[in-house]
Amino acid sequence: MSEYIEHDKDKISVGIVEKKFYTFAEPPTELVLESGAKLGPITIAYETYGTLNQDKSNVVLILHALSGDSHAAGYYKSDDEKPGWWDNMVGPGKGIDTNKYFVVCSNIIGSCMGSTGPCTINPKTVLPYALDFPVVTIGDMVKAQKALMDHLGIRKILSVTGGSIGGMQVLEWCVRYPDMVVSAIPLATTTKHSALAIAFNEVARQAIMADPKWNRGNYYFGEKPDLGLAVARMIGHITYLSDESMRLKFGRRLQDKSDFSFNFDADFQVESYLRYQGKKFVDRFDANSFLYITKAGDYYDFEKLHGDGSAVKGFSHMKAKFLVVSFTSDWLYPTYQSREMVKAMKKNGLDVSFCEIEAEWGHDAFLISSERLTALIRGFLDRVYNEIQT
Amino acid sequence: MSEYIEHDKDKISVGIVEKKFYTFAEPPTELVLESGAKLGPITIAYETYGTLNQDKSNVVLILHALSGDSHAAGYYKSDDEKPGWWDNMVGPGKGIDTNKYFVVCSNIIGSCMGSTGPCTINPKTVLPYALDFPVVTIGDMVKAQKALMDHLGIRKILSVTGGSIGGMQVLEWCVRYPDMVVSAIPLATTTKHSALAIAFNEVARQAIMADPKWNRGNYYFGEKPDLGLAVARMIGHITYLSDESMRLKFGRRLQDKSDFSFNFDADFQVESYLRYQGKKFVDRFDANSFLYITKAGDYYDFEKLHGDGSAVKGFSHMKAKFLVVSFTSDWLYPTYQSREMVKAMKKNGLDVSFCEIEAEWGHDAFLISSERLTALIRGFLDRVYNEIQT
Repeated sequence: MSEYIEHDKDKISVGIVEKKFYTFAEPPTELVLESGAKLGPITIAYETYGTLNQDKSNVVLILHALSGDSHAAGYYKSDDEKPGWWDNMVGPGKGIDTNKYFVVCSNIIGSCMGSTGPCTINPKTVLPYALDFPVVTIGDMVKAQKALMDHLGIRKILSVTGGSIGGMQVLEWCVRYPDMVVSAIPLATTTKHSALAIAFNEVARQAIMADPKWNRGNYYFGEKPDLGLAVARMIGHITYLSDESMRLKFGRRLQDKSDFSFNFDADFQVESYLRYQGKKFVDRFDANSFLYITKAGDYYDFEKLHGDGSAVKGFSHMKAKFLVVSFTSDWLYPTYQSREMVKAMKKNGLDVSFCEIEAEWGHDAFLISSERLTALIRGFLDRVYNEIQT
Repeated sequence: MSEYIEHDKDKISVGIVEKKFYTFAEPPTELVLESGAKLGPITIAYETYGTLNQDKSNVVLILHALSGDSHAAGYYKSDDEKPGWWDNMVGPGKGIDTNKYFVVCSNIIGSCMGSTGPCTINPKTVLPYALDFPVVTIGDMVKAQKALMDHLGIRKILSVTGGSIGGMQVLEWCVRYPDMVVSAIPLATTTKHSALAIAFNEVARQAIMADPKWNRGNYYFGEKPDLGLAVARMIGHITYLSDESMRLKFGRRLQDKSDFSFNFDADFQVESYLRYQGKKFVDRFDANSFLYITKAGDYYDFEKLHGDGSAVKGFSHMKAKFLVVSFTSDWLYPTYQSREMVKAMKKNGLDVSFCEIEAEWGHDAFLISSERLTALIRGFLDRVYNEIQT
């Protein structure tokens, strides 16, 4: 996801929040991964907003995408420049109303934002895992999230929601823990990456691995593969936008000049923007995490994992009520993929609402403040919450 | 353009052809470029197929895209594995019938396939130009092509055709030499790159420049920036295809294995394919030429150059008859851009035929053997040829 997050300090926010950590305490403290490899010890970084009600029936679990983290809303310090990545949706009176719901967001394993990942120290070597970190899957991420829920004493989740590979985690929650998940809101997602999506991820990975500073993943004590990671990020960035959004945002406008430079400087605003986004990203993200998380997204194949190749069969044991949302200009996770998902849900008689939102912002649309999306999510949560009360 | 070129040795070909070279002989042998810089001496590599008729009225000029060259048709040696890049269209009895037309195709300046470009020896330093090569534009390429036409004694061109940035050259021919160009066939092109197209080109350039072996363009005596160029090529490749064509060609099929590797090898066929295309490309193409030619494409802005921002004004002095062709799945040069071009042509009362061809192959469709495209081009050339005879 990119940096289009709109925020407004004057809007009511959840305020100051704290990043917490849970290190799996109960034996076995190791996770057996989908690949058969074992991973442990495991720490999960997470945040919560709002208050857990007495019967623990108001939990909303937010699952983040590639470059996200546990910081979905609020501020760590009063002078933070930006709030959490979904602050426009999560807060008092917002779409996911923290006056009403207890919201949990945790960092996925494999990431670099506090949960165990390739940059974590491997206790066996007392060095960062680097490529000794096992390849984790969407299912493994969800398994780790489930351990966190157990730790928090949560046995029922009112709603799981997330976009992009966060949406894949949503599906995985519903299929693994059908009795625990009351409802689910997969946004701008798919049951499996298309060849096009895999291709973009692969080229981004190649850009990182082509950087000699990547050094087969061993760069934690020297210079980092910043140039490779920046190119990877730029590739991703383009795929999160759309022809239309780029035309509106940049067009062919030049950057601080009246004519072309006739050299290889950034002439166009879109070039400067991409260079800036690439540079900014390397300060906050780990190149190995980029490799691991994109691979997890590419491997995910709901039909293959849960339905012997059939989506209808895959959804057959689910019980959750669904709100599926896609966006017109999202060409990375296009609407037709959401429609296929919805069709398979309906064939199983599931309670599904589907909405394709008219949006020019491409895949990023799910992160951008939208009255339509806010109203949809608010209405859906209200309904499912009321339904479990009666 | 990518490597999807279909060919069939059994089909009648123009046979063995020879790459020829023309070094500008008449003073001034230097070209004054659009940037104001001067370039010279200049050599143009070119090929011809068919026979120039007595009144020199049967010339078809082919203008190639980013990675193309003068070798549009035929074979250099009888055991060549592949013919020229547009062999399915150019030959005896083909869409551009060499029994009837005298076909010329030359390598653009800035390239590395025989015409003067950044890998050429700069006579002033007796070293390759590298980044001392001036940034050339689409207009500069056309100016050089015009010098070749003068050298060949050609004063009238029955038709100019080309796709992608070859199509930009087509437009430039029509606007610069309106009395010389009888007809024109711009394929899968635009009057100016969108922000999306610029963004992809910029990321590809960044991939090259991020490779330390690029060394600010000075790599001609050492190791080349192969990894960076391969990533650049992979990025380009994806943009030449389409969601649909990649689904049909690759889907999520695995490469020579029954399950995932759970490491960063190529698991999916689409990954292997891209890696292979990247590797193959670096053997035949120069990284600096990639930079120069993509920049020329990004700079091109027909409306700005020729119409004070108006396409209608830009086309107002043209005389050529047009056949404009776009392809349904081309998202790099989408149909709406061709339609805008056609609208501006029609507002000037120009003789325009427009066709959007249903094709799943994305931007690459213009290179792939298609009965529809062949019939369209053959019919159009027949018509304009007959019209000048009467």
